[in-house]
Amino acid sequence: MKDSDEFKVLKKVFKNLGNQYFDSSSLLIGPGDDAGLFKAKKELIFSTDTSVGDVHFPKDLEAKLIAYRACAIAASDIAACGGSLKWLSISLTTVNKNTKWVENFSKGIKEFSDFYKVPVIGGDLTVGKEISVSIGVCGEIYKQDFMRRNGAREGDLIFVTGNLGEAFLGLNILKEKKKKLLPKEKNYLNRYLKPEIYFTFSQSLSKLANSCIDISDGLLGDLNHICEESKLAAEVNLEAMPIVGNYKNALTWGDDYQLCFTLKATKVEQLYKIAKTHKIKISEIGKVKKGKGISVLSKGKKITIKKAGYNHFNG
Amino acid sequence: MKDSDEFKVLKKVFKNLGNQYFDSSSLLIGPGDDAGLFKAKKELIFSTDTSVGDVHFPKDLEAKLIAYRACAIAASDIAACGGSLKWLSISLTTVNKNTKWVENFSKGIKEFSDFYKVPVIGGDLTVGKEISVSIGVCGEIYKQDFMRRNGAREGDLIFVTGNLGEAFLGLNILKEKKKKLLPKEKNYLNRYLKPEIYFTFSQSLSKLANSCIDISDGLLGDLNHICEESKLAAEVNLEAMPIVGNYKNALTWGDDYQLCFTLKATKVEQLYKIAKTHKIKISEIGKVKKGKGISVLSKGKKITIKKAGYNHFNG
Repeated sequence: MKDSDEFKVLKKVFKNLGNQYFDSSSLLIGPGDDAGLFKAKKELIFSTDTSVGDVHFPKDLEAKLIAYRACAIAASDIAACGGSLKWLSISLTTVNKNTKWVENFSKGIKEFSDFYKVPVIGGDLTVGKEISVSIGVCGEIYKQDFMRRNGAREGDLIFVTGNLGEAFLGLNILKEKKKKLLPKEKNYLNRYLKPEIYFTFSQSLSKLANSCIDISDGLLGDLNHICEESKLAAEVNLEAMPIVGNYKNALTWGDDYQLCFTLKATKVEQLYKIAKTHKIKISEIGKVKKGKGISVLSKGKKITIKKAGYNHFNG
Repeated sequence: MKDSDEFKVLKKVFKNLGNQYFDSSSLLIGPGDDAGLFKAKKELIFSTDTSVGDVHFPKDLEAKLIAYRACAIAASDIAACGGSLKWLSISLTTVNKNTKWVENFSKGIKEFSDFYKVPVIGGDLTVGKEISVSIGVCGEIYKQDFMRRNGAREGDLIFVTGNLGEAFLGLNILKEKKKKLLPKEKNYLNRYLKPEIYFTFSQSLSKLANSCIDISDGLLGDLNHICEESKLAAEVNLEAMPIVGNYKNALTWGDDYQLCFTLKATKVEQLYKIAKTHKIKISEIGKVKKGKGISVLSKGKKITIKKAGYNHFNG
């Protein structure tokens, strides 16, 4: 949280990012000291997520967009557990030695901070050969409400929020540097750049769902994490899925940051109520079964879908 | 905390790192879910620190040494506030696509985790063009004990722990790849690679000191942070400083991770008692005064010391 003059740059650029949300987040000391100090009312959740240039986003993306997206992606893990977001911590490695880029980056942090009314507890700034952003996120939740990956039960119904495949289309629009966009294309681009995190919905959901995950690596991969951790299988119906674009990309490419969750059939009525309250689109896509792995059915027949998603360690 | 098969690698390599310390740290859910869950008894401290290859450490350094040092440096901020260490979070960007390097890295995390009896709450693993390690650290403290940088008072005495300049010599031994080392050289190398963090001492110190900082950027730079934040000046005596090697390097190069703190003269007797109890060497090096900046006196005369330390943004 320091390093000679880096400290001054950080202080100037990163200070007052969401300071007005200190009280509501029980943050007692923010950036500037060796560490930030905060209080907890409930149990606390922590997660960290690193985004690297040209791995997780195009490196020529505008700094403030890189910042916003990195925050959203990290914060998505808090929603996936059912928590409320308490604070962010920013670790930025930049390739630029001037502070302009960092200032633009801080605008993205500010935008996120203001949208979700969340303070920044502190950060770290270094110069390296590639842009790398590590965001730490802290949330609050009661222990009994924490939605785990291992909580799925046989017979649970499987749901997803929103649409699948939008972020993949958005990323391609970004890569093509297309200028004049149709409204739906703007929507896809937005899903990639500024995925909305459903904090209030997922806090209500946490009282109903048995398991939940955010879709960062494609529905099939992430649902498989739930299956593996819960030692169960899943059967999903292609026709029931809210797919946009090519179904392979929609199901195996990540970046959508929608939620996939399972719950008891008896709780479906309540689920639709809270989805309506929070104006979140949900789709029932399948069922949790005994066994292992995921079966995808199309018109009643099992089909095989080859993974199109990115894999860091074999990619 | 996931990303397709990365998740499996992480799970395999990083799981069980300090799981035996979950209970003592009130950690309820560790790596493997979307986020970790923990409880707090006191107030909480959070800090994050990023180490980049060839900026903060030689990039050909053994992976487990990179890992250990990154943890120590990050955790040092918790000691600088007077807190006890609660958990670590690991964000690793590696340039290696195989898992051998990551496995070796995890050994360094394990060693740190075992030495300080602290669990790992979770992490993130990505592949990039350079090695980058972001460590998040969480500590616990009572609010009233938190040692701030802005707490120095006029007339406070200034102290440092240990010696200054050892890590600089250690880094040079490392760079020269010297094989046969004298005991004191081994000690210097160790100070660079595995700086000991004085958690128990600093917890006692937090009841006495008015301000504290860990020396990551050289004594003069870090003491200046205390002066700036406290809106006061400092006068230090060269001859009183526990310097090893060239005094310019010792005072302006960082990496020592000793503590610099200020306290009321009436508390010095108590200070020496706790230093003795915890077997920590301390040296009184100067006084907090009215004004701005730091004056270094040698044999009663003011001298000027040019900064030798590294500066990310002007370097």
